[in-house]
Amino acid sequence: MPSMGETNMSRILVDGHGGDDAPHVVIDALAQVLAKQNKTVKFGICGQPEVLLPVLREKGLEEVVDIIPAVDVIEMCDPPAVALRRKKQSSIHVGARSVRDGEWDAMVSAGNTGALMAISKFILKTLPGIDRPAVSSMIPAEGGSTFFLDIGANVDCSSEHLVQFAVMGSCYLQAAEGVESPRVGLLNIGSEDIKGTDVIKVAAARLRESNLNFIGNVEGTDIFTDKVDVVVCDGFVGNVALKSMEGLAKLMLTQIKRELTSSVIAKAGAMLAGNALRRVKDSLHPSEHNGAPLLGLNGIVVKSHGSADAYAYACAIDVAIREVEAKLIERTLESMNQMADAS
Amino acid sequence: MPSMGETNMSRILVDGHGGDDAPHVVIDALAQVLAKQNKTVKFGICGQPEVLLPVLREKGLEEVVDIIPAVDVIEMCDPPAVALRRKKQSSIHVGARSVRDGEWDAMVSAGNTGALMAISKFILKTLPGIDRPAVSSMIPAEGGSTFFLDIGANVDCSSEHLVQFAVMGSCYLQAAEGVESPRVGLLNIGSEDIKGTDVIKVAAARLRESNLNFIGNVEGTDIFTDKVDVVVCDGFVGNVALKSMEGLAKLMLTQIKRELTSSVIAKAGAMLAGNALRRVKDSLHPSEHNGAPLLGLNGIVVKSHGSADAYAYACAIDVAIREVEAKLIERTLESMNQMADAS
Repeated sequence: MPSMGETNMSRILVDGHGGDDAPHVVIDALAQVLAKQNKTVKFGICGQPEVLLPVLREKGLEEVVDIIPAVDVIEMCDPPAVALRRKKQSSIHVGARSVRDGEWDAMVSAGNTGALMAISKFILKTLPGIDRPAVSSMIPAEGGSTFFLDIGANVDCSSEHLVQFAVMGSCYLQAAEGVESPRVGLLNIGSEDIKGTDVIKVAAARLRESNLNFIGNVEGTDIFTDKVDVVVCDGFVGNVALKSMEGLAKLMLTQIKRELTSSVIAKAGAMLAGNALRRVKDSLHPSEHNGAPLLGLNGIVVKSHGSADAYAYACAIDVAIREVEAKLIERTLESMNQMADAS
Repeated sequence: MPSMGETNMSRILVDGHGGDDAPHVVIDALAQVLAKQNKTVKFGICGQPEVLLPVLREKGLEEVVDIIPAVDVIEMCDPPAVALRRKKQSSIHVGARSVRDGEWDAMVSAGNTGALMAISKFILKTLPGIDRPAVSSMIPAEGGSTFFLDIGANVDCSSEHLVQFAVMGSCYLQAAEGVESPRVGLLNIGSEDIKGTDVIKVAAARLRESNLNFIGNVEGTDIFTDKVDVVVCDGFVGNVALKSMEGLAKLMLTQIKRELTSSVIAKAGAMLAGNALRRVKDSLHPSEHNGAPLLGLNGIVVKSHGSADAYAYACAIDVAIREVEAKLIERTLESMNQMADAS
């Protein structure tokens, strides 16, 4: 096995136990990333060796991927608080500790989101100046995508929290996606300055004075346009908006399918148009968008969707690599310091 | 002209000046409703007689529709507060006063929503026990539709406000849509009782003790299912969710159209499937759903969409007629009294 700590090498640890088809999907994803890597990244997998080693061997990866042993496994149904306190030898606990201790640069997991957030926050803590971490999602939009946060970690937010989310989101898009000057908008019920709650108005005033590229208030419709890159809101609003989108997309695709199979002519049309409709469906949940960073932590953690396939999981690993290589933590700290100097 | 105040006759006043193509659309809608009415409804139109009379004459309606003169017209761009204070002889002011004074039973308007709400609230006041009126929307759902409120009138809501919205929505569905025992849900970020803000938790506790058919917390995805009839949230969350849905629907339909015209085979499919896709598009904004009641007022006011055609506007008039005939105001008062007795 390669020794730890080669200089200039990004070290990415994956959770061997999260997601629908672990560890197979996770290890297949590692194989895909390794196949196109030019040796600048070192990989580890965290979890029960007796489960992980046979699969690594089967894929011929036992020599290139380190196993970091962990005895416990957190299940999807475990309440986050219980997982945090009772399963201290879980793969997520062990992984987060090894990121905290500088042994690995980032962790990727497809496990229980609530538990991943609770454990990461407990072990890694937040960055200085940041009160709360946030969960984010990349939303498909006209001409690209929009980075949307918080989507559920924080139900009650102060103006200061929203300002911190704006910094975190802007730094992420710069570091991981290479967007030079991300346009940041505050989600509101109208674009005028007088609209919205006092929390929003104070946050907008602070953001206008900041060095972020703040474009002001944006509305729900704007998320899907090319008008804004980062949309900031509290976790209650973000979660409701995201789930409303999911519900509507499902209803529309069901209706389209039903209408297309309601007559012989439409059925013939559906067969011809089938690939086009499949592409639309896929574009709502692109594999390339898998890998949601948990932002604001003093360490890099990326959440893969539980149902991700190997290609999608590999995309989440790529997110972690980009965050490490672009020094997201340092950039975010620097940006927070600039905000503090400006105020 | 018929005289006012026939017994047992519902008296509906329409605003002659709101909407994209007033008064033509409004008067065409009246003609449609009159053509299928069996003389149990009396109609009036409020506005500038010199504008309204020629169109009524052209449609042969000058003998059956009363003109209620009003000299001012509120424009879509007028700020609500300015419209309220400076245009006291507007068609909306005159109409609201005539509903308050018992001359008409309900008003329908396609005008400026903010001004309609502000003026209606100022002139009609809210019902005893109700602090704030709410604006609602009927959302398409699997197997029917879901009644969603508040969608923007109230950005900061207490638990008590949410409870009042629940009563208002439940009474509306009973009265106007004939739903016997509407299933009421509180919009939240999870269905478990421990989820959400304190405002939500207290509202849920109150609703569980009420005589409403309260099914508990619902999530954004549930809006589009057959699980719930009335979804209650504050106006900030409701507005963001509604506009996110609008934005996503627009993006999906644009993508489908683009994908379907991207190749000759898909194009042939699109031609065959065209009617099916048009039906899906129409089902997102059904004309039958036009007519959003402003609820909680001491008087019946229905908002038609500004771009409604005559058929859709006639649907909004039907909403007003159903509210009057089912005595929505009395039902809501009774339900509020029962809530007060129970607490």
